[in-house]
Formats: sequence, structure tokens, C-alpha cells
Amino acid sequence: MSESLLLKIGQTVFLRHDSLVILDRRRFPHQVEEVVCLDYETVAQAIEIMAVQGAGDIAITAGYGLWLAAREIEKKSAFKPNQGYVLMEQARQRLVATRPTGFHIAAILENIMIRTNWDQYPWSPQILTQLENIIQKQDARSRLTGDWAETLLHDGDAVLTHCFPGAGLLYMFIKAQQNGKEIKVICTETRPYLQGARLTAWAVSELGLPVTLITDNMVAYCMSQGMVNKLITAADRIALDGTIANKVGTFQLALAADYHSIPFYVLGYGGPDRNSSSAQEIPIEFRNPQEVVNFNGVRITGAKVQGLYPAFDLTPPHLVAGVVTDRGIFPPSEVEGYWPKSG
Amino acid sequence: MSESLLLKIGQTVFLRHDSLVILDRRRFPHQVEEVVCLDYETVAQAIEIMAVQGAGDIAITAGYGLWLAAREIEKKSAFKPNQGYVLMEQARQRLVATRPTGFHIAAILENIMIRTNWDQYPWSPQILTQLENIIQKQDARSRLTGDWAETLLHDGDAVLTHCFPGAGLLYMFIKAQQNGKEIKVICTETRPYLQGARLTAWAVSELGLPVTLITDNMVAYCMSQGMVNKLITAADRIALDGTIANKVGTFQLALAADYHSIPFYVLGYGGPDRNSSSAQEIPIEFRNPQEVVNFNGVRITGAKVQGLYPAFDLTPPHLVAGVVTDRGIFPPSEVEGYWPKSG
Repeated sequence: MSESLLLKIGQTVFLRHDSLVILDRRRFPHQVEEVVCLDYETVAQAIEIMAVQGAGDIAITAGYGLWLAAREIEKKSAFKPNQGYVLMEQARQRLVATRPTGFHIAAILENIMIRTNWDQYPWSPQILTQLENIIQKQDARSRLTGDWAETLLHDGDAVLTHCFPGAGLLYMFIKAQQNGKEIKVICTETRPYLQGARLTAWAVSELGLPVTLITDNMVAYCMSQGMVNKLITAADRIALDGTIANKVGTFQLALAADYHSIPFYVLGYGGPDRNSSSAQEIPIEFRNPQEVVNFNGVRITGAKVQGLYPAFDLTPPHLVAGVVTDRGIFPPSEVEGYWPKSG
Repeated sequence: MSESLLLKIGQTVFLRHDSLVILDRRRFPHQVEEVVCLDYETVAQAIEIMAVQGAGDIAITAGYGLWLAAREIEKKSAFKPNQGYVLMEQARQRLVATRPTGFHIAAILENIMIRTNWDQYPWSPQILTQLENIIQKQDARSRLTGDWAETLLHDGDAVLTHCFPGAGLLYMFIKAQQNGKEIKVICTETRPYLQGARLTAWAVSELGLPVTLITDNMVAYCMSQGMVNKLITAADRIALDGTIANKVGTFQLALAADYHSIPFYVLGYGGPDRNSSSAQEIPIEFRNPQEVVNFNGVRITGAKVQGLYPAFDLTPPHLVAGVVTDRGIFPPSEVEGYWPKSG
């Protein structure tokens, strides 16, 4: 596999003729397995099973779902505009409902719905053009976020990260390499899906940085031994008050970092969600408890034991040293300033 | 399997003719697989691969290793007492070296070596009698520890635990049931060996308590949601200053508990190690990093990624609400008082 497979979404989520192909991230790094989607429902299901992962990439994939919905309508012979719009709105709602904690899906799909000229049929070419723009903008945003984050790194730093924080993390490390900074990386494996092991540790090691993998419960130990200088994760949603919703486990990593006076920086890419003023407005997604009581399809505990699977947690702003965006680094209490005040 | 399989060591570690049989705990709860030991070296290896687990049970198993060493000597025709003692001392050192963080192996084996009358040959019957006494004492100690711990529980409590805290935890829950207290239990799965999932969650659910399994990174989330009233773990070693060495992850659980004002109690059974005055004197065992980068024999990350596997961590005494022993509950700063001052 290429060293930049996870840097650009186009390498793992792309169109082939009239279908969307998703390289299933649950099989990385060892297998390349395609999920081929011919309709938006299959895209929704692929998002739900986490064949694609990472807030920005999920949102783009959902956008392709909307494109497939338009194609489905366009393929039907007798087209009725009103009925078609209702179907598009149904598709939007279905796709938004797949992963409730992140706000990017809702934001991108709303954007597409608003910007599509519904009087100009067919709709799919318009949607595709918008998607191509969004992908370009997201890539530029990741690069800028990575550039800002890189200014926080010092030669010799050891960065601990959790789950897969997206392309911004990779751009940050690439820039640090270009600037001659030697950086070591520690990745948590990120149970139950092991994104840290399968995606982050692998992708970063392919860039040539030394990477150490630990289980999720070894973080405080590593910090206590002086093995970590910075904690850096992404966020699935940032509230205007600086609350960070991210992969479950982030909160206790932030507590351990705070105890050891290690700064916790959040890659915030395109800033906070303007519709979430505080933690109360961020729903936590609960996934299938079977994913906790089983591992690789084998039950790992007694028959009477229940599982619980909150997929995200909330880190309060006072545990965060800074939110790194494409527009600069904000103290969490001032992250609302990412959005210019409307006059 | 019986509901008390993990309550008494004799059910999973026992003699059969001239061999020691260990039911491999890494296969629980679904399989009963025997590790049959005919010599002390096999016992040492069984301890190293964690076929037996839990500080007290490991120490008893090592004691049986010493018994096997004596049997090995006794089976040889030409017995020379001095040479035999040297072999016993070699066996002791080999067994002590298996797991360096816990102090129970060293303590029990030293005890046996001191109390054996080396002039009275054969030695194995003496060692066996001592072992039977130690097992009885440990069981009584577990029961007393459980009784004391139970006084901390209130009807409706939700207890979060990590790894397998030994029979004291089970006795505590049994007593709480007898006293009509309804207790809920949350177990971390405890990566990489999943003792929490395979041993604790299973054993506690077999007692009839409602048990929820979570991954190690969901603890702070559960605490933030008011799902946990008490954090209770065991300790592989307690220093005289109240430092707790326990399964890696305990430290960050203690930090999360402290943040949420949830008391952290440690099942301290037979008290602190008189030879460890502080954290500095507790060696942390590092296990094979392959156990982190592989899961069930399958590599879960890229080929260039290193693993790190500290098996224990140290929790400072200020994060501990109390150490529960067979002699009562001690504030960590006063745990030295477990041992009566010699006049």
C-alpha cells in the first residue's frame, strides 16, 4: 500500500462507473476489501458498520450517498420533480442518522441540499461538482490544520494520539519531517475497533516516524514515565464552549495528560459546530454492545454479561490547551471566535 | 462450570498424582484446558504465560513449583542433602523471577524455604503441608477482606473494577447479596489479556449480579454519566507509603475516579509489602510487545510499528480512599500500620 493511502480520501473512497467504492478500513492495514455501493442505503450501511471512519471522510462518503440517491432517481423513467425532492430529503435524513455524534455529515449534506438548483435537472452532476469542491477544500483545510499543529511540535517531542485523527495529523508529521524535527509517536490501539492500531500507527509508521503501539489502559503509565510530551487527537464535534466530542477514551486521556501537565491539543479542522453551544447539545452515539462482548466474532466473556458501547465521550474545555484549526490555534474558551461575528 | 470456579484456587490449580494441573485461565470462560506440570520449570513457564493469574493464586502455584522441585530431587536415587538444597534454591529463584512486580511469590517461597526442616528428608511432604496451610489462610484472608470491603457497599451501588481482583471481590459480592444489597458491576475488559472480560465479568455474573462489560477506554465516560459509585481493584504490591502497583490501567482509572469524586478502594488482602517502602522499590514487569501488536495471533498494525507492554502501573496514595485488608480498612497513608510495630 502507498504511504499516503489515508492522506487523501480519493484513495479509499471513489467512484467507479455508477457505483461508489469504499476500501473497508476495518480490514486495514493487511487487506484491501472493497465495499461497492450502488445506492444510498448501502452507503448508509457502510458508514454504520464503520467501513469508512474519521469525521471528515465519513461526511464526504455520505455526500456520495446523496449523489447515488440522485442517480437512482435519474435512472427512473418517469421523473416527477416534487417526488424526486422528497426522495432526496429522505436520503439526506437516512444518511445523517447513521452517526449522530459528529456534525460534519449533517453540515455537508445540508450544504449540498441548499446549493443544488432543483430546477436544473439532472441533479447528480451538480452534486458531484460540489463534492469535488468540498474534497478539495477539506484537503486544503487538513493541510493548513497540520501546518498550524506542526508549529506546536519541538524537535524530540513524543506525541501520543488516540483513534485516527485524520489527514491533519499526517500533514503535521510530514511538515515536521520537512522542518527536520524528530518526532516519536505513541498510538493507543483504540478498542473496540482498533483504529489506532490499524489506521493511525500504520499510516504514521509508513511516513517513516518511529511509532509505538500501546493498549488504551497504558496511557497514564507512559505519561508518568516521561514518555509523552503532547497529547493530540481530533474531534468529531466541538461545541462553541470548547467541549470536545471525540472517540471514547479521549476524556480519560485528557485527565491523565492534565495530571502530568502534558498539553492536550485538538485538531479542530473547520472549527466548532455553530449549532452546538455546549456539551448538552451533543448526542453520544451508542453502538451495538455485541461489538464489546465479542472480539473477531468470538465471545470474550460469560453468557450473562451485558456489553455497553458508547462510541464517543465529552472532554470539558478546561482540559484542552488549544484547538488547532485551518485558521489558527484557539484556546478552547475562545473557539467560538473561529466564526467571524456577523455584523 | 461451577459458579465458584474462581473462588477457591483448588478448583483451578490442583495436584493429580505426581503432577500439578493448572486450568488455563487464558481459555476461560469457554474452554477448560489443562496445563500439566511435571517439574518446576513447567510451572515457571505456566506462570510466565499467565495460565494462572492473580497475585495470590500465582504465589500458591509457585509454591507447588517448589513442591515439584522437591519431588524431582527425591525421585533421584543418590540423594546428597547439600546438592539438593542448592537445587531447591535454584528452583526458588527461577520461580520468583517469573513475575517481578507482585511480591507474593517471593514472600510465600521464602516462607516455605525458612520453615522447611532440611534435615528431615523427604522434603515434599513438609512443603505440601505448608502449602495446604497457606491456601487455607489465603482463603480465610480473602473472606475477611471481602467482609470488610462489603461494609463499604451500599444498596444500589455500582462498582467498577479492573482486571481480576481475586476471591476477595467475589466474597464481597456474596456477602452483599446475603445482606440484601443490590449491587451492579461494571468490568473493564483489561487489555491485552482480557482478564476483566474472561474472568471477572464472567465470575461475577455467575454469582447472579448484573454485570456490564466495557472496553478500557470507556471508564471516564461511565463515571461522568453517574454510572459508577465505587472503583475497587486489587493490588499486586502495596508499598508501605500506600503506593499501589496493580494491572496497568489502574492508575488512569484512579485519576478518572478522583476527578469524579468516586472513592477508589484497593483490596489489599494481607497488607503491604514490608520490603517496599515506596514506589521506587517496585519493579514494573515488561512483557513481550508481540502481545500488544498481535491479537489472537493476528497482527493488528503495520509491520514497522513497535509494541510496548508494561504489565503494571503505580497509583500514588493520594488517589486511594482506602486499602481493605483482612485486618480492616486502612487509609493509604497509614497502611504501614497493618504490621504491628515490633517492640
